Amino acid sequence: MISIDLNCDLGESFGAYKIGMDEQVVPNITSANIACGFHAGDPLVMKKTVALCKKYGVGIGAHPGYPDLRGFGRRNMSLPYAEVEADIIYQVGALKAFCDGEGVPLIHVKPHGALYNMAGKDYDLAMAICRGILAVDKSLKILALSGSAMIRAAQEIGVPSVSEVFADRAYQADGSLVPRSQPGAMITDEDEAVKRVIDMAKTGTVTAIDGSVVAIRADSVCVHGDGEKALKFVEKIHKALQDAGIEVRSFS
Amino acid sequence: MISIDLNCDLGESFGAYKIGMDEQVVPNITSANIACGFHAGDPLVMKKTVALCKKYGVGIGAHPGYPDLRGFGRRNMSLPYAEVEADIIYQVGALKAFCDGEGVPLIHVKPHGALYNMAGKDYDLAMAICRGILAVDKSLKILALSGSAMIRAAQEIGVPSVSEVFADRAYQADGSLVPRSQPGAMITDEDEAVKRVIDMAKTGTVTAIDGSVVAIRADSVCVHGDGEKALKFVEKIHKALQDAGIEVRSFS
Amino acid sequence: MISIDLNCDLGESFGAYKIGMDEQVVPNITSANIACGFHAGDPLVMKKTVALCKKYGVGIGAHPGYPDLRGFGRRNMSLPYAEVEADIIYQVGALKAFCDGEGVPLIHVKPHGALYNMAGKDYDLAMAICRGILAVDKSLKILALSGSAMIRAAQEIGVPSVSEVFADRAYQADGSLVPRSQPGAMITDEDEAVKRVIDMAKTGTVTAIDGSVVAIRADSVCVHGDGEKALKFVEKIHKALQDAGIEVRSFS
Amino acid sequence: MISIDLNCDLGESFGAYKIGMDEQVVPNITSANIACGFHAGDPLVMKKTVALCKKYGVGIGAHPGYPDLRGFGRRNMSLPYAEVEADIIYQVGALKAFCDGEGVPLIHVKPHGALYNMAGKDYDLAMAICRGILAVDKSLKILALSGSAMIRAAQEIGVPSVSEVFADRAYQADGSLVPRSQPGAMITDEDEAVKRVIDMAKTGTVTAIDGSVVAIRADSVCVHGDGEKALKFVEKIHKALQDAGIEVRSFS
Repeated sequence: MISIDLNCDLGESFGAYKIGMDEQVVPNITSANIACGFHAGDPLVMKKTVALCKKYGVGIGAHPGYPDLRGFGRRNMSLPYAEVEADIIYQVGALKAFCDGEGVPLIHVKPHGALYNMAGKDYDLAMAICRGILAVDKSLKILALSGSAMIRAAQEIGVPSVSEVFADRAYQADGSLVPRSQPGAMITDEDEAVKRVIDMAKTGTVTAIDGSVVAIRADSVCVHGDGEKALKFVEKIHKALQDAGIEVRSFS
Repeated sequence: MISIDLNCDLGESFGAYKIGMDEQVVPNITSANIACGFHAGDPLVMKKTVALCKKYGVGIGAHPGYPDLRGFGRRNMSLPYAEVEADIIYQVGALKAFCDGEGVPLIHVKPHGALYNMAGKDYDLAMAICRGILAVDKSLKILALSGSAMIRAAQEIGVPSVSEVFADRAYQADGSLVPRSQPGAMITDEDEAVKRVIDMAKTGTVTAIDGSVVAIRADSVCVHGDGEKALKFVEKIHKALQDAGIEVRSFS
Repeated sequence: MISIDLNCDLGESFGAYKIGMDEQVVPNITSANIACGFHAGDPLVMKKTVALCKKYGVGIGAHPGYPDLRGFGRRNMSLPYAEVEADIIYQVGALKAFCDGEGVPLIHVKPHGALYNMAGKDYDLAMAICRGILAVDKSLKILALSGSAMIRAAQEIGVPSVSEVFADRAYQADGSLVPRSQPGAMITDEDEAVKRVIDMAKTGTVTAIDGSVVAIRADSVCVHGDGEKALKFVEKIHKALQDAGIEVRSFS
Repeated sequence: MISIDLNCDLGESFGAYKIGMDEQVVPNITSANIACGFHAGDPLVMKKTVALCKKYGVGIGAHPGYPDLRGFGRRNMSLPYAEVEADIIYQVGALKAFCDGEGVPLIHVKPHGALYNMAGKDYDLAMAICRGILAVDKSLKILALSGSAMIRAAQEIGVPSVSEVFADRAYQADGSLVPRSQPGAMITDEDEAVKRVIDMAKTGTVTAIDGSVVAIRADSVCVHGDGEKALKFVEKIHKALQDAGIEVRSFS
């Protein structure tokens, strides 16, 4: 039976600041990417979010980002590779400690925001991330864009990888995402977005923006939990996948 | 044979900022307390410092502190206990990941600065720290002031404890340190400081500032590595302890 | 004609994190205390908030706090007085620059959170704050708890002061607030809260929790804008004050 | 009489961390660029550094940078222009307040590190900086690389500009610096470095690395104060300029 994972960023609140509807979204997802305090999250939020995921049996992943709380990790930063590697070890290790405290395994690591985007294209940066992951625990998987430099680096260095697809994004002929700045980048029709994911899961391909058919690996779909609309979509895609005979379950 | 450990704070540099003469002091100590990025240190510094300790066979400890880089963790902060517990898990977990990456064990945790001082007297705060340590790894020891609330909390909750003494500080009749603000608080004569440590190690007692003899447990002596003078003293006390027939070795 | 000012904390958002309903509350207040980036706020938020206040003709004040974003400036910190003074100059100067850019005057300074509470009782801390204010601009007023050490320090050193009262807090016989930890500290009945403020404005007294009548100076009432309920209360008290023949206007 | 200014970065210490030999270098320079707390410096350091400059009659400038303390502001960050503008207002305003407190004028603004380098080539970024400077005080000058996009933007928008040259860097035929990654980028011979500056000051030209003669405007020379060697060079170039009949004085 075909299966797919639904992953969502959780634990993005910070101190008195709240982002995300974690309690409502967590029953509908199978994997969580928990912020590690650099671009979002704080130790107390991490502790509570790990406990929340444990309660719902959701697979836990670390979601390390650039040290840029004000920019939510979304701005490019030109850090030395050695520093990125150390930052990954630090953040992943911190989250793993909360998992150890709760007696649940840390399953995966998904780089966040600008780090995800930059490492998707920069093989050396992707390698630095993979070295960091390996240093913490050789069984950790990396969750990364299907066909990206991160997937290639992981395969080269021996980090198990999980390929991610996006429901609401158009693809280019080379399997990369159409940049948001270009027309047609976003799939705004929810039904079409759901249909695309079902097709990706069943066929291992996606129709690119130029009409060509591109091979894609859909181990996990990225969903969002940062508003009522996002929440409704998670419920919708979860149900639609099941109705299409696709099992929604964690890759762990 | 009587033995004692020499512990020193290491890894306190941050980015372009350098504090401490880690390379010079590390051959003379047996345990290192490595800053974890909240009051000092950063991921790259932590990685290098763990590697440095590994090279010299020095026992590695985490040195978590208050989130106050500008104050070097030396200012009291009234954090909720739940937050202190989470901060300990975060910082200790982060350092443990660097140890895992280097294949060396994390041995102990020594709270830093204001956190050390406050938890030495506040049993509930000490308990929060101990809960954090237990969450990460039940085999971790706590390194804390002999006779302090931290030692009592550790014994109560089941964290193995290592009792620390200070060479350069006078003691009160109840075994606590004479506050720095009071006359006679500091032992400025180095020979006397060394002699006091040797006596503490051999007799399990120290003569308090009022002349009374107080029971003390001297598992480890705190030394400093933040200047030429401090460095010379580490070499001096190391040699003097050996000459007095006391083995200088890690408690691990 | 009796008049009173309604002051509210604004500009507490940070990067992607939003706190407060600034746009909705600003038409109903006469003075704003704008966060300065240490406990909340960031430069872009400060710039927009100054422009928002200018649009509605609201008096602008700086709202400096402890450097504790994660704790929202609500935790006590034992900073040296010289550092508090410098932190005040820094934060007030930063906000003043945004006012200068918009061509509107900076009117007042209201210390935030733990700094407000601590300086309300610690005369030396209050003096450090006042020295900081004076350094930036001798015409700046301090907005502080009626009868507090801050008001006394301001009068001593020559900073014009504006006395603040709270609608939703009970008072002790010495004019200080009943600590939140004690029963009866909060005035939960909104009508009673409004009535108390009208009485304070008209009589210059408040009935303390022990029944005694205490002199109080009600130049400004602190209101909140961090939720629907708070917002409704601001509208309610604004109207009730006007209906009672009290002019609601800035102290500037 | 030909004159030139010697400018140096000061106030880069942070909390317990010390960088720079400010006390020794300040008697030998005529302008100081004082860090503003984002990439280096803190409020107390800023206050002391302003007082130090006042004591020696050194012209004071703000040295705003990217919000990246760990990277010392040396890493590229892709901030929105609106945020850079607001960050400039914030940092310059903060430093100006310390100047106001000491009764000395703030003379100039020199962007730091990666911000300086990026804005030297990115006209829109340079414009954002200039808008920030104008917002704080229309009389402030910008100190920027001779011939750079910052100088052009400043001239366009009406910020008075001061052109900076480097003693220890080779130039390209278009007047830009040879990137450090290329051979010959650094002028390592001190006597040659001094001679080049004297020539630049006297002739308004510099010989580029390809042998061509390039027009350059040498209002100020950037010198360093972060070590014994740097300090000696400041003394040397100061004396050599005077011996060559060039007056060393601030541009203010």
